[in-house]
Amino acid sequence: MSAQAVKLLLPRWLITMTPGSPVLEGHALAVEGERIAAVLPREEALSRYADAERVELPHHVLIPGLINAHTHSAMSLLRGVADDLALMDWLNNHIWPLERQWVSEDWVYQGSLLSAAEAIRGGVTYLNDMYFFPTAMARAAVDSGLRAGVSINVIDFPTGYAANAQDYIHKGLAAYEQFKGEALLDWTSAPHAPYTVSDETFTQLRELSEKYDLQVHCHIHETQDEIDGSVKQFGVRPLARLDKLGLLNDRMIAVHMVHLTPDEIELIARQGVHLVHNPSSNLKLASGIAPVKALEAAGVNTVLGTDGAASNNRQDMFTEIRAAALLAKGSSGDPLTVSARTALEMATVRAAKAMGRADDLGTLEAGKQADVVAVSLEALECQPVYHADAQLAYVAGREHVTDVWVAGRQLLKNRTNTSIDTGALMGRVHDIVAKMRAGR
Amino acid sequence: MSAQAVKLLLPRWLITMTPGSPVLEGHALAVEGERIAAVLPREEALSRYADAERVELPHHVLIPGLINAHTHSAMSLLRGVADDLALMDWLNNHIWPLERQWVSEDWVYQGSLLSAAEAIRGGVTYLNDMYFFPTAMARAAVDSGLRAGVSINVIDFPTGYAANAQDYIHKGLAAYEQFKGEALLDWTSAPHAPYTVSDETFTQLRELSEKYDLQVHCHIHETQDEIDGSVKQFGVRPLARLDKLGLLNDRMIAVHMVHLTPDEIELIARQGVHLVHNPSSNLKLASGIAPVKALEAAGVNTVLGTDGAASNNRQDMFTEIRAAALLAKGSSGDPLTVSARTALEMATVRAAKAMGRADDLGTLEAGKQADVVAVSLEALECQPVYHADAQLAYVAGREHVTDVWVAGRQLLKNRTNTSIDTGALMGRVHDIVAKMRAGR
Repeated sequence: MSAQAVKLLLPRWLITMTPGSPVLEGHALAVEGERIAAVLPREEALSRYADAERVELPHHVLIPGLINAHTHSAMSLLRGVADDLALMDWLNNHIWPLERQWVSEDWVYQGSLLSAAEAIRGGVTYLNDMYFFPTAMARAAVDSGLRAGVSINVIDFPTGYAANAQDYIHKGLAAYEQFKGEALLDWTSAPHAPYTVSDETFTQLRELSEKYDLQVHCHIHETQDEIDGSVKQFGVRPLARLDKLGLLNDRMIAVHMVHLTPDEIELIARQGVHLVHNPSSNLKLASGIAPVKALEAAGVNTVLGTDGAASNNRQDMFTEIRAAALLAKGSSGDPLTVSARTALEMATVRAAKAMGRADDLGTLEAGKQADVVAVSLEALECQPVYHADAQLAYVAGREHVTDVWVAGRQLLKNRTNTSIDTGALMGRVHDIVAKMRAGR
Repeated sequence: MSAQAVKLLLPRWLITMTPGSPVLEGHALAVEGERIAAVLPREEALSRYADAERVELPHHVLIPGLINAHTHSAMSLLRGVADDLALMDWLNNHIWPLERQWVSEDWVYQGSLLSAAEAIRGGVTYLNDMYFFPTAMARAAVDSGLRAGVSINVIDFPTGYAANAQDYIHKGLAAYEQFKGEALLDWTSAPHAPYTVSDETFTQLRELSEKYDLQVHCHIHETQDEIDGSVKQFGVRPLARLDKLGLLNDRMIAVHMVHLTPDEIELIARQGVHLVHNPSSNLKLASGIAPVKALEAAGVNTVLGTDGAASNNRQDMFTEIRAAALLAKGSSGDPLTVSARTALEMATVRAAKAMGRADDLGTLEAGKQADVVAVSLEALECQPVYHADAQLAYVAGREHVTDVWVAGRQLLKNRTNTSIDTGALMGRVHDIVAKMRAGR
């Protein structure tokens, strides 16, 4: 054993999220440095680690940190700026003009830090981000202690961030080189979407993902319009185009995937593509409802994301877990599909696999990174508790998260953010928003 | 002006929920006794009511109390006892056997009081309940200070509560007579559902609703099976049967209504039937998705409910408001349907109309009952705020409710229940659940 101090987390219930494992009672989680040393019966833990610091969590469930597999963190600054609009009105007349006018390194940093603080308060330990100015997201993650997937983000038209595809790639690679030693960061090769990225750029980003061993993070089949447009422009649906370009494999984190034929579901299952389901965002923008029951039947690794705060104003994985379970049942007519446990897996163990981090993240097991969340079920609205796992999916909210650790470091303590000066951050956010309101 | 002390509530934002009214800033709500005395500009309020007690709510939105138009309050004791099951398995093998074994006056009282405490913590000031032992619900409401619709509940088979339809009616009327002077209580004539109540009983309950001037609270068209069964047994769909029996009018609070033909939508619009949409429960039990966009187009008064805690484990109207807005968009393909404001109306002004209480409840207007809720948007996950009404529907959760008044009496103060000893209540709940676990 190393010289690093051991902490014993002593919850009422412990759910390792190893598929098929029961809800454990009377167990302890031993954390040594940044990793989990053991999950073991409480008495054995108290005896084996007699000198360890003890964290009693008598009303709590301990689970792996939640992974938000798709968001645009900086867009927290645009939360609720424009709601109840049609997608293209919303994009063309609200979101894109605001982004063109305001997005900068500092804007992205402050927005990303706000999202990091919200994530931590909500039991999220990993944000898979896609946005401009990836250095700003990288700094926000490092400064807050949150784990993140940072994007080498490419879109084939100019923005305030970059002039053209080569410029995006150049800037993204420079960010990657600058931060590549950071233990908390993963990087993704991130073509925005088939309707905004050319074949040449897709091919470059595929090669880049192979060269640097990166996952590929891409919006695909979000709306019927996107599919119709692809058929018109390329003669095939977007998935067929990406298949031809060699992108459909287990590096691919395919976001949305609302509209899928049975053949396409079979294809992505066979190729090991990971699918990020964003139930709230897809409903709010009326994109449609992903066929999750069929995806489950085919064995697709379906995971969960919030999407950005401009389209899903709550950046809340508890809401997405519950929505995923309910929506799959309601839209398929099958109350047995997507159980509470399955929905929780979509936000933990399965999401770790999607990020290419199954060895290190996603379950509470000895040797894995200590990304751990304590959720209190003491509040009267969470009582009584018959099954702690179902209670997490169907009853508890992010407000019941009390404590959060990432790589063994405590980022939330009794609901207080410890790594971020949230008062100062809110002051900066209000300054930015005041400027935006004045300048519109 | 009477001798009753005036309280001035001084929020950052005030939403009267009068249809079409803006979000007010710099306004005050004056409460005199149990009623609203005025909504007026802050400075004018401070001058007109110079001696009034002042309640500063600098980060808060003030709204009318939320109305949960359909629940089974006592079932909070069965929250999460059995999830992820098919409806008939869930009812026959879990819920009904548990109810047969355990439901009693005390069980219903404790469960109803738990739901009352949860409601108050979540900004709900009115629970429209349907359950056995209505005296227990009536006592829970009176003891907690919460407003409630209590049911004269009838089902054509014996339970631990009553032996047959006449026995249910007799007991329900006795409860009504016992509590009829209570200002916080409304009573409903409550035939359980077309598949559990005979024509004769429906007719009796219609007559009873006319004699005592009561709304009628009934589950209708929840599942396709129910409709198929009615066609087989009665030769018509349930709505047609109820129409023939004279029940489709503005006394009718029709719950669920998932499966509706265009003609049926036209019929209920014309007859003034009120419809309680339960989005979470309908999804979780895979009953289907109510056609809310079409209901809106037809002008049906659609309002919101949670259903009981055994089928919608969160008794949370914020969740239902958000779900109603998102699900209507996602299921119809129209992102413009059910705006944030419309969803909020479904839980306030429209719901008051459904309960037959439009004159007294549902908006913040002079002369109405002071059922008022303060929601703080100070937490970082609620920031920034561009539009306070959209923020309530899409961002805020019940955990952001800080203060609640019913008929001018404060029931929640800075998130603490003031009318219920929640510690003692939780002890009693845990005793009941321990007995149930031991006795199964």
